[in-house]
Amino acid sequence: MKALYIDAPGSIRLRDVAETPLAAGECRVAVSMVGVCRTDLELVKGYMNFTGVPGHEFVGTVVEGAERLMGRRVVGEINAGCGTCDECRNNGSRHCANRTVLGIYNRNGAFAETLTLPERNLIPVPDKVRDEEAVFTEPLAAALEIFEQVHVRPATKVLVVGDGKLGLLIAQVFAQFGTRVMLLGRNAKKLALAERWNVMTAIADRDALGAIHFGGRFEYVIECTGSADGLACALNHVVPGGTIVLKSTYAPTNAPQIDWAKIVIDEIRVVGSRCGPFAPALRLLARGGIDVRSMIDHTKTLDDGVEAFELAAKKGVLKVLVRV
Amino acid sequence: MKALYIDAPGSIRLRDVAETPLAAGECRVAVSMVGVCRTDLELVKGYMNFTGVPGHEFVGTVVEGAERLMGRRVVGEINAGCGTCDECRNNGSRHCANRTVLGIYNRNGAFAETLTLPERNLIPVPDKVRDEEAVFTEPLAAALEIFEQVHVRPATKVLVVGDGKLGLLIAQVFAQFGTRVMLLGRNAKKLALAERWNVMTAIADRDALGAIHFGGRFEYVIECTGSADGLACALNHVVPGGTIVLKSTYAPTNAPQIDWAKIVIDEIRVVGSRCGPFAPALRLLARGGIDVRSMIDHTKTLDDGVEAFELAAKKGVLKVLVRV
Repeated sequence: MKALYIDAPGSIRLRDVAETPLAAGECRVAVSMVGVCRTDLELVKGYMNFTGVPGHEFVGTVVEGAERLMGRRVVGEINAGCGTCDECRNNGSRHCANRTVLGIYNRNGAFAETLTLPERNLIPVPDKVRDEEAVFTEPLAAALEIFEQVHVRPATKVLVVGDGKLGLLIAQVFAQFGTRVMLLGRNAKKLALAERWNVMTAIADRDALGAIHFGGRFEYVIECTGSADGLACALNHVVPGGTIVLKSTYAPTNAPQIDWAKIVIDEIRVVGSRCGPFAPALRLLARGGIDVRSMIDHTKTLDDGVEAFELAAKKGVLKVLVRV
Repeated sequence: MKALYIDAPGSIRLRDVAETPLAAGECRVAVSMVGVCRTDLELVKGYMNFTGVPGHEFVGTVVEGAERLMGRRVVGEINAGCGTCDECRNNGSRHCANRTVLGIYNRNGAFAETLTLPERNLIPVPDKVRDEEAVFTEPLAAALEIFEQVHVRPATKVLVVGDGKLGLLIAQVFAQFGTRVMLLGRNAKKLALAERWNVMTAIADRDALGAIHFGGRFEYVIECTGSADGLACALNHVVPGGTIVLKSTYAPTNAPQIDWAKIVIDEIRVVGSRCGPFAPALRLLARGGIDVRSMIDHTKTLDDGVEAFELAAKKGVLKVLVRV
């Protein structure tokens, strides 16, 4: 089958790849559409030393495996656990020590004609959710994970640092919950989009990220830049006793140096946050309250997949989708 | 009056110091007894650039100020807030941006014949709590702060990293709450003391701190070493989704370099934790369930205060008290 393939750091190309043999309990999904995520761009640069087919934000149709899902349009939880350890049995596969991760770790991903995932990872997509919306299930679930981990009071003030795709989605979710949310970013176009969602915005150049004052600090700061200065900014703007949620991983070469004494003295909570629950994300998309369509900048075909990656890497470009 | 005084980094001596004039709303306390805390030793080395009288773990008798407290034996919350800002009015003085801190920041402390604190900071000590127990109110309150910040399930497993005075006290509090608690330390004498309190213990040399295996990881890890390898050890031993509580500040020269990707991928919570509530700490001491007397290694007079600091700095020495 055709697939985009990372051979080595810096190299991604379209090539022929063997279909993955179907393991017990797994389904094969014919991919319809995939989103390019920043993680994908990092994988191309060498993150996780990944080689293989990237792609984890997908929608497709089950073509082999469980009868009950055959022919159904599905999205899929990207962490494939062993299914038998305590972690899998009690909490699901997201933190299974032996997990593979679709298009990220030891499992080929969605920039291909087909992919495989355990049946339990797949969730049917309601008819009213179109493909170009359904591909946002995974990042929307990651946004909702914040609410799984932290009790966010609607009457509070939240700062989202970083106007990338995930930052925009998170700000939008907070706004939808009635929270007073401020998005701090660097791109006027993206911030204008956020304003349409009733999100307050502030623009900052690289030097001023930490220097901006909002007339008060925030009980919750969501760090979505994955940069050391983003975390420093979050620390500057959180109230004592407040919570910083880290939604981006940091490359080892860009590991933040932080003021640990401030964490202790001001009793700050720092909460790492990764993948989230798919079912509520799909419910939000079905309800139509989340505007994901405005975040789509380009739609390409798999044959033009390398170009899709190049576009997605450009400054200011939001979501690039690939139709398979 | 006589007091121990830090003139400059590295220098502490007994000298004559003017009594602090009494501000509105404050009381003067004749100090009876003071404990030497690791923070005091750090202040002598230059932490916070503090000059003045150190000492914040005290018990004494009110000799000037509020009528209702006159002649009463008291302990005192060490953070003196402005009393008028939103933070003071809503949450008390511990995070007031304009606070002074007894013997730590802009306020002379307890290694002196008298000290001053706002009336609202002082709490009468029940008769049955003796002076050498009452001086543990402040560190015991700091231990209880963990339970103010984090919901700790009694049926869980907790790892306390570091067998210093605070680590021992925290392990003891967890054991008293029925939690399965493991204390990881380096000093056989201290660990033997913890065993008496029904705390499981493990000994580690510097190199092995992170390499020890307990047959499973811990939902809560309390980091009490204030060292970079202590935090690395905590990260090694916390389950995905677990919580690390930081009970020690880190000197800027010893700032931990941590694996930030692990925090995000494993969705770890890191919670800074500092001063805690005095009233429940006093209740625990009055009840008699916490063994603080076994933690006292030496009791000196204020005249021998410099020697008390030297003793407290020795490896393996637990609490050193100073009788004023």
